[in-house]
Amino acid sequence: MTPTRTENLARWCTTLTYDDLPEAAIQRTKSLFVDWIGCAIAGRHHPAIAAIAAFSKQMGPASGKSEIVDASGGTSSAAFAALVNGAASHVVEQDDLHNCSIVHPATVVFPTALAVAQEKGATGKEFITACVVGYEVACRTGEYLGKTHYQNFHSTATAGTLGAAAAAAKLLNLDTDKTLSALGTAGTQAAGLWQFLLDATHSKQVHTGKACFDGIFAAYTAQADLLGPRDVLEGKRGMGASLVPSGATIPTAIDALLGQKYSVLESSFKWHASCRHTHPSVDALLKIVETHDVKIGDIESVVARMYQAGINVLSMSEQAETVHQSKFSMGFVLGVAAKYRRASINDFTEEALRDGVIREFQTRVQMVLDERIDGRFPEEWTGCVTVTTKGGDSYTEEVDVVKGDPGDTLSWSELESKVATLAHYAGLTDLAPVKAIMKRVAGLESESNVLGFQF
Amino acid sequence: MTPTRTENLARWCTTLTYDDLPEAAIQRTKSLFVDWIGCAIAGRHHPAIAAIAAFSKQMGPASGKSEIVDASGGTSSAAFAALVNGAASHVVEQDDLHNCSIVHPATVVFPTALAVAQEKGATGKEFITACVVGYEVACRTGEYLGKTHYQNFHSTATAGTLGAAAAAAKLLNLDTDKTLSALGTAGTQAAGLWQFLLDATHSKQVHTGKACFDGIFAAYTAQADLLGPRDVLEGKRGMGASLVPSGATIPTAIDALLGQKYSVLESSFKWHASCRHTHPSVDALLKIVETHDVKIGDIESVVARMYQAGINVLSMSEQAETVHQSKFSMGFVLGVAAKYRRASINDFTEEALRDGVIREFQTRVQMVLDERIDGRFPEEWTGCVTVTTKGGDSYTEEVDVVKGDPGDTLSWSELESKVATLAHYAGLTDLAPVKAIMKRVAGLESESNVLGFQF
Repeated sequence: MTPTRTENLARWCTTLTYDDLPEAAIQRTKSLFVDWIGCAIAGRHHPAIAAIAAFSKQMGPASGKSEIVDASGGTSSAAFAALVNGAASHVVEQDDLHNCSIVHPATVVFPTALAVAQEKGATGKEFITACVVGYEVACRTGEYLGKTHYQNFHSTATAGTLGAAAAAAKLLNLDTDKTLSALGTAGTQAAGLWQFLLDATHSKQVHTGKACFDGIFAAYTAQADLLGPRDVLEGKRGMGASLVPSGATIPTAIDALLGQKYSVLESSFKWHASCRHTHPSVDALLKIVETHDVKIGDIESVVARMYQAGINVLSMSEQAETVHQSKFSMGFVLGVAAKYRRASINDFTEEALRDGVIREFQTRVQMVLDERIDGRFPEEWTGCVTVTTKGGDSYTEEVDVVKGDPGDTLSWSELESKVATLAHYAGLTDLAPVKAIMKRVAGLESESNVLGFQF
Repeated sequence: MTPTRTENLARWCTTLTYDDLPEAAIQRTKSLFVDWIGCAIAGRHHPAIAAIAAFSKQMGPASGKSEIVDASGGTSSAAFAALVNGAASHVVEQDDLHNCSIVHPATVVFPTALAVAQEKGATGKEFITACVVGYEVACRTGEYLGKTHYQNFHSTATAGTLGAAAAAAKLLNLDTDKTLSALGTAGTQAAGLWQFLLDATHSKQVHTGKACFDGIFAAYTAQADLLGPRDVLEGKRGMGASLVPSGATIPTAIDALLGQKYSVLESSFKWHASCRHTHPSVDALLKIVETHDVKIGDIESVVARMYQAGINVLSMSEQAETVHQSKFSMGFVLGVAAKYRRASINDFTEEALRDGVIREFQTRVQMVLDERIDGRFPEEWTGCVTVTTKGGDSYTEEVDVVKGDPGDTLSWSELESKVATLAHYAGLTDLAPVKAIMKRVAGLESESNVLGFQF
């Protein structure tokens, strides 16, 4: 019998070794890991994380081999450490984004791989390899499910559960059959709806934390001989059939070019601290205001031409009643960018929510669907912004490669600066431990273990 | 603003008291609980349960206030005890079924309520009230999602997560706002695909166990101020919009007649040990073979006329390669019934799988869609069977109330006998402890706690 695409993917996961990895993939994985550390630090004080950490203390063991990045600096079993860390790293909207899949892979892959690697005593090389595997499965699953899945489902949660399962399975050295079971059990747990965006509630953190937990559940139970459905992606009652109402899946995404291209090399670092769907428009606006020295008060109106999926997500938070929601409001984000000529984590605050200038500007911004741009999504995330000034001038800029994208990636020193900003945001006054950790990550492939990553 | 239906449901959950409950609802809840105990005992040795119990030991605390019914007789935190018990009670296909919602409520509500009640030191009355609330939410959610949801989704898993959350929230005394958050967080985790039936893998137990765990997660995090989406059922990106591709939801099911009818009184005990979709046909066949004294060898062919949802589920397991799968094969189940004039738990075995007479009979059974019957589903689960004998006789019987249904419910002594059979099946030789527990359940409303339910 011809193997299914999912079997091909599972077999590739089990056979990949560290020595197979291109040098660029290794270096990028370390960069993405450093970036993730910054996001996890910055998010750990959020009320949603406190609630999830409280649940972990009530229901999980009092301590364990896996480290929690929350302020308490505690430890737990792998499943609970990954639950808390996965939730924390998706709070501040600074974690990476893989365009084609519309998945934020870091926030589900790193917490899972780190927690399991710590529990199993894995080496730096084993950790890196498992992360590459996790990225590949999360991103390929997201790409398979496609942009119509993303209309109602938070793909990072659904596809992410399989990515987490794959990373954990790799660290447990599961064979192809058991890896397939892990993916199957992950897929039948895959969930996560956009409904929370409509009333600014906390599910975004639940989604990523639970994707980690559920992926670990899938891998560990597979190790203990629990059988999962063998074709959870393309099967008649599988994820494609059930979670993609349009039927517009992309089957070849599951196993095409395995080992020939790497998802870690396709993921974008986020430079701005807002929803990734706003970034092309932010960069286009920044180009205009910097080139023509336009001040926020000079602007009469802004039209942001974009793809439908971005409009769908951003329409749910237009009012921007909370800090988190404000990062999902195109009007608010462009207001911040127009005022400060940047959109960094320190610009999205309770004070900014009460800033009359930004609030007034927000009403001058309109999102418009552009069929041409929509047709290129999600392979390309294009923004096209037209600014009309009160003086009657009109400027248009189009951007499809934003700062942090693979085509304009962040250098190690830019990442160090980003992580320092994030750590500072979290209230860390002594950055020495964070710097020491970054240094360790730079040489991660030589580390005999991945313990001691608390900060 | 007019409250949403989900708000009405949450408010009803928080205001219901034990004294509001009709006597019949109290008595039936105790009967359903005894029935559930039997199912949990019978399923606890299954390999899937061993794997889930192993995960619980690896990731959960070594002990706790909540009791696990697996053979080890251990304890854990509420979330892990409910995980294992919820999985165990859905193994042998003997747990109850609520027709209109196509949900098996016991297997998600009782494990959750029992574990949380034990952790909180709740009384028998508090436990009963929480179970009534859990049934109401699970069944109303299932009915809202409807039969097209059930085509690809295991409603017991999806709707069950909300039922579990509601039962846990009730025991935690959450107010309406926090109960709404718990339902929202439950809904955004709701998952469970039928794909596993196609290759006889273990997701059915994962679904019920995880519904309990995830429901507890939702309630405890809501208690700790995590906000869940406030309209996870009817919201624009909620469960109805996302998990019911046909759009055929039944909104009134969410809050119509709250307090005037009780889901516990609408649920059916399972007398036969096979998929509930086979029961009407089994009863019709039994009526024919008993009335006309037809032996299995006399039968030329059987036509089972039924509703589409039953055909969908049963078509996935026609070959019946495992014991579990054989309970989902109409041909196999009717073969067992024709041969033994019953379809009890002891009739579905590895030996039965190799029984040439049943296997040959299986090929003589055909399922046929009947539009009239389909139109009445899921309000009525009708089976209409025509048996043609080798002698040329033809007999037809139609059944819509099967033994165990609310219209023909089981007496306490029939339940005692069912539980004894299940306990015996699980290898228990000394039934005294089980009998003692049943006696305690009979007077549950007078118990000051619900501890000591291990057997």
